[in-house]
Amino acid sequence: MTLDVDRLLGELTLAEKASLTSGSHFWYTAPVERLGIPRIMVSDGPHGLRAQPGESDHVGLGGSLPATCFPTASAVASTWDPQLLRRIGEALAQEARACNLSVILGPGINMKRSPLCGRNFEYFSEDPFLAGELAVGIVGGIQSRGVGTSVKHYAANNQETDRLRVDAQVDERTLREIYLPAFERVVTAEQPWTVMCSYNKVNGQSASENPWLLQTVLRDELGFEGLVVSDWGAVYHRVPALLAGLDLEMPPALGRSPEQVVAAVESGEVPAELLDRRVRTVLELVSKGMAVLDLDETFDADAHHALAREAAAASVVLLHNDGLLPLAAGGRVALVGEFARTPRFQGAGSSQVNPTRVDTLVDELRAALGEVPFAAGYGVGGTADDEALRAEAVAVAAAAETVVVVLGLPGADESEGFDRTHLELPANQLATLAAVAAENPRVVVVLVNGSTVVLGDVLPHAGALVEAWLGGQAAAGGIADVLTGVVNPSGRLAESIPHRLEDNSSYLNFPGDSQVVRYGEGLFIGYRGYDKARTDVAFPFGFGLSYTSFALSDLAVTTTGSVAAGDLAAEVTLTVTNTGDRDGAEVVQVYVEDVDASVARPVRELKGFARVELAAGASETVTVALDQRAFSFWSTTLGRWAVEAGDFVVAVGTSSRDLPLTAVLAVDAPRIAAPLGRDSTLEEWMGDPRGRALVQREVGEGQAGAVLDAELLQVIGNMPMSTLASFGMSLDHDALDRIAQEWRDASTDTSDRTGSTTA
Amino acid sequence: MTLDVDRLLGELTLAEKASLTSGSHFWYTAPVERLGIPRIMVSDGPHGLRAQPGESDHVGLGGSLPATCFPTASAVASTWDPQLLRRIGEALAQEARACNLSVILGPGINMKRSPLCGRNFEYFSEDPFLAGELAVGIVGGIQSRGVGTSVKHYAANNQETDRLRVDAQVDERTLREIYLPAFERVVTAEQPWTVMCSYNKVNGQSASENPWLLQTVLRDELGFEGLVVSDWGAVYHRVPALLAGLDLEMPPALGRSPEQVVAAVESGEVPAELLDRRVRTVLELVSKGMAVLDLDETFDADAHHALAREAAAASVVLLHNDGLLPLAAGGRVALVGEFARTPRFQGAGSSQVNPTRVDTLVDELRAALGEVPFAAGYGVGGTADDEALRAEAVAVAAAAETVVVVLGLPGADESEGFDRTHLELPANQLATLAAVAAENPRVVVVLVNGSTVVLGDVLPHAGALVEAWLGGQAAAGGIADVLTGVVNPSGRLAESIPHRLEDNSSYLNFPGDSQVVRYGEGLFIGYRGYDKARTDVAFPFGFGLSYTSFALSDLAVTTTGSVAAGDLAAEVTLTVTNTGDRDGAEVVQVYVEDVDASVARPVRELKGFARVELAAGASETVTVALDQRAFSFWSTTLGRWAVEAGDFVVAVGTSSRDLPLTAVLAVDAPRIAAPLGRDSTLEEWMGDPRGRALVQREVGEGQAGAVLDAELLQVIGNMPMSTLASFGMSLDHDALDRIAQEWRDASTDTSDRTGSTTA
Repeated sequence: MTLDVDRLLGELTLAEKASLTSGSHFWYTAPVERLGIPRIMVSDGPHGLRAQPGESDHVGLGGSLPATCFPTASAVASTWDPQLLRRIGEALAQEARACNLSVILGPGINMKRSPLCGRNFEYFSEDPFLAGELAVGIVGGIQSRGVGTSVKHYAANNQETDRLRVDAQVDERTLREIYLPAFERVVTAEQPWTVMCSYNKVNGQSASENPWLLQTVLRDELGFEGLVVSDWGAVYHRVPALLAGLDLEMPPALGRSPEQVVAAVESGEVPAELLDRRVRTVLELVSKGMAVLDLDETFDADAHHALAREAAAASVVLLHNDGLLPLAAGGRVALVGEFARTPRFQGAGSSQVNPTRVDTLVDELRAALGEVPFAAGYGVGGTADDEALRAEAVAVAAAAETVVVVLGLPGADESEGFDRTHLELPANQLATLAAVAAENPRVVVVLVNGSTVVLGDVLPHAGALVEAWLGGQAAAGGIADVLTGVVNPSGRLAESIPHRLEDNSSYLNFPGDSQVVRYGEGLFIGYRGYDKARTDVAFPFGFGLSYTSFALSDLAVTTTGSVAAGDLAAEVTLTVTNTGDRDGAEVVQVYVEDVDASVARPVRELKGFARVELAAGASETVTVALDQRAFSFWSTTLGRWAVEAGDFVVAVGTSSRDLPLTAVLAVDAPRIAAPLGRDSTLEEWMGDPRGRALVQREVGEGQAGAVLDAELLQVIGNMPMSTLASFGMSLDHDALDRIAQEWRDASTDTSDRTGSTTA
Repeated sequence: MTLDVDRLLGELTLAEKASLTSGSHFWYTAPVERLGIPRIMVSDGPHGLRAQPGESDHVGLGGSLPATCFPTASAVASTWDPQLLRRIGEALAQEARACNLSVILGPGINMKRSPLCGRNFEYFSEDPFLAGELAVGIVGGIQSRGVGTSVKHYAANNQETDRLRVDAQVDERTLREIYLPAFERVVTAEQPWTVMCSYNKVNGQSASENPWLLQTVLRDELGFEGLVVSDWGAVYHRVPALLAGLDLEMPPALGRSPEQVVAAVESGEVPAELLDRRVRTVLELVSKGMAVLDLDETFDADAHHALAREAAAASVVLLHNDGLLPLAAGGRVALVGEFARTPRFQGAGSSQVNPTRVDTLVDELRAALGEVPFAAGYGVGGTADDEALRAEAVAVAAAAETVVVVLGLPGADESEGFDRTHLELPANQLATLAAVAAENPRVVVVLVNGSTVVLGDVLPHAGALVEAWLGGQAAAGGIADVLTGVVNPSGRLAESIPHRLEDNSSYLNFPGDSQVVRYGEGLFIGYRGYDKARTDVAFPFGFGLSYTSFALSDLAVTTTGSVAAGDLAAEVTLTVTNTGDRDGAEVVQVYVEDVDASVARPVRELKGFARVELAAGASETVTVALDQRAFSFWSTTLGRWAVEAGDFVVAVGTSSRDLPLTAVLAVDAPRIAAPLGRDSTLEEWMGDPRGRALVQREVGEGQAGAVLDAELLQVIGNMPMSTLASFGMSLDHDALDRIAQEWRDASTDTSDRTGSTTA
């Protein structure tokens, strides 16, 4: 059953139309019972549902229906496996169908501008390409089962500090190249049912009232056909938001909004057609969403738990291994760490799931290995007797062959609503680690945390180190599978791990103050910043070890098409070989570097990747496709994507800093500089073959010829020709006008096709 | 003789008035012979005059009258001695008087945002306080002799790349705290005859057309009474510049400008009164400047050369000394380095002086020490046979007890007109240094360079290291005086020397591209950046050694006044003792740190200093005064300088990273946050005693009381109360309006005097 939207638009009263553009309750759209328009339910749920049916319980975060808590975004991003995210999406959709839920409010695909962002555990990566591919996986999976998504938080919502008022001041190129591409990718590939606008301002205008974001970019340029919903409470001025492109205000502003909308239409401030357009979008969403209303389905909690365990294992990143892992069968293993008994597996805030069950590492390791002595080792939250716990842990470690120590961030450290202020693990945990390692150096450290921690006090004591993130309700099983070798780890870092917080390029400008945050680092977030500044990191973006080894060889890059035609493409092929004695998976990463760029560009950027599963000893030819966009930057001069002529390096490897294979591509492209004219500098004229000839012709001999003198050129070369004309140096104004005209005339043939407008 | 400006304004025709607002020739104002208004001459000259009398020779940089080339700004800034700069200013003025020159176009007081800026040798420091004090010295000296100055380049002209078109995008607070204070200091203390506006745009508007810079800040706020002249060629739109606050266009735009001005007045675009105001300013300048026109004075070239030598010696910064310095009398010293024979002592561009004479280090060292074997060691500019030169240098070094190696930047590396792209010394020089040091480890390195170089390849080979900058025509004598101990070095770095270019906070945003440079590092330039990021540097701001030693003791800080009254002041006293056996000078530096700041602030900032000359064994009590401004930041919330209540640390020492004495001041100050209201967050209400009481009164018991729950507060604490009211959480809109009104009513008494408006 669907709605006849055209008919309904004719029958709805103005008041009813207005009512449809706000929700009716916290998690419901507004029904119009007179016309058979039902309400549909939406729910938080990036990594598991937090469905709160009914009207009463919208204040607290608890009390939601039991649901499978899958690994958080930080975790699943480390799988670099969009297909796995697709399967998780399908499972989430099934759980939604089982509770007649129409739209899942996720995924969150903001960039991890700073490792301090309190909500980083809900986001994928510091890299927009990776985030976009992962978003395509989960959105595609959810929507393939007839349930909608809400891609969020659009846009530049990269911190929690003052998130409802802060103005994110970001230059357009940085928005285009860093903060918008993941949205662009998922919108163009999967048409999410909804996009959720963020709380913050972007360059002075609240996202909910920002026509550039909601109309120009999202609809006009990216072709978004779905509905824009506000983040909960992100509408500050109802009518400007409606005009800017917001379709649905959530939650309703307690009855105030519809009246404001009605009044605005009656006064002519909002054209009736515009309101109709918004209502049409709402009705189209309801029409799609109502398909789940009468379902009487269930979900297989066991199967979903098993999928959550598989995903948790795939999320684990093996950072260091002196040979302690996998744990030898029969080796006497002890387990230390309160988190092994009281697991931390998700973050706090709107994404908090009421899990169907929760595994513990104590249980899971014992199930795998038999007897495993356990000691809590430290308290979480500050009330425990850490000295006693530490002594107990040391005693347990002394009696074991190998000790697994679980460390992590207390739940109070990471949450929606506030940002962290440092990247340290708790001191009491580090003290326990040091004490245990002093007693028994065979220490395997397992980290559970939603966002990056620094490891300077961990690495000296860790014979092996795995980053398990916040892995969901089955995290413990997944971790146990990796530690015992049931699963060969294949996770790769979706975010760099720096040595120090201060090394992060956003450090000087995070989180801002006085309701402003300036994105001073521009394009250079994450590895783009560390690479540009040649800063050593603890573990680079893309890094992860395996229990087997891989070799990459035989790189070949072939190109087709052309920049001029807008269809430049490159096919990158190479051979991946599992050179070890264990089956495993490698993630081949393709980075592109613009060697001859005339504008500041990152050293290299991820533009393709492929996860390859290989049996021990097996080889496979891998192909990664790059389109023209992979070579493009956003030209502020031209106001569009552009590729510059010159050499590009395609670098292939297994992390952003281990790129053994490179190929150089010489790319031909039309001139992208502005045309020469009166305000072009002497250098620019002299650097252009036709320009130089024209200047030389006019200058001729005599004193004005001094302009061509090399030493003087250094000093005045950056002066516009018009300034020099006023000085009486080089050409006079008339001669300058003449050669500028001649240059333009001769350029007409080529300057009209300076690259394509869609790259 | 002076002009009767009031009478002249009544007699001048419109065309004559218009003509007066542009120069008549490259270096002359426009005369009006009919009314006896003469032309006056201006000339480049921050560290020596480049007077080019007459009309013909304005194209080339050469051909100026001989003048004393004093040390460049980088060098004299290292003296931290405003009194010495005052004496140099007096000498410059005398040379100006000798050639009937009315205005010297300097000093340049832009901040050294990046060590790459090609014109850094013309600027003082990375610190605005130091630059301001030095500017006061030289401007005061020049103007005390009846010659004008032109403080330049106003504002944010911190690079040469695309300097005529680039838009410096700088937030207001950064302008107020970093880029404007040196101008503010010299304008308020010395009223320079003129201020020169820069070529670049500032936040979208060319400096010459920027009413905020030229009128609001410079005249309305700082009280500037002099004339604003354009940098040469910095007027892009004549009439908007006139309206914005530009008095004098230089050079004239070949006859076009007066017609435009006349037309604009006739059309009413420019009020006649406004043109009169500009003309009055020009006439007042001419009136002051014409006093030198008929002088028949000379200057004492020998005395000025001696002053230049004294200044050069005072500029030398001793960075490292294993005991090789001062050179022992009778020790066999050899000298290596082409720069010892062909000195580099000034930078290229408009500041280039035609010196009265030039000393060489070969001559000066021989004059001091007798026989000093010399080898060029390397070529400058790339045509020499470096292998042969190096072999010769090694041979000379082998036969000597101690080798002085002079290294530096070739002239082509540093100039007005372009920026550097790296901080390295030439490879051929470094190779010679390494070869010499391998033969004879007793190496004293002397650096001659206008802006910072990295020293990673120098320090391992240097038993002693002095930074001599570009020390003017008598640099060699000054260096010799320091090397031989005739002068005990007392120079202190006015700019940090980093380990790597990439460590500099502006690195990611210098020099920008596409005609935009974003000051992404904000306040954190120079040591403010290194300190904030806790980045190790090679040599910190303020650092410098001596041949004697000093001890600081007995710090006492007493305060008077109050923030509320706008007259908070602190007197910092301490004892400085020369603990060595040689007379010498120490520079005591006072830094202020705002410990409890609610906004991002630099770790600490220089707010006072004193240069103290002490005989061996002597002690002196030093007093440094701090005014309220020393504790202030520019509040973007309030739009004025503000001091926050809380603890401040006053740290005293001999460099920005050697601060052995500290005192903590508890400063009381009125609340500076915005008043509480509907859009204040829950946290802000709960963090204010009166606010919290009001919320608690209204919330009462029941479900809405959940808002006070600690866990939920974490997640929603940063939500504005108005948003929560729409959610139905905590207060409803009416109750919120009520408590907001109550809070405001009770605040009226105090909120009107939230600190003073002038701090």
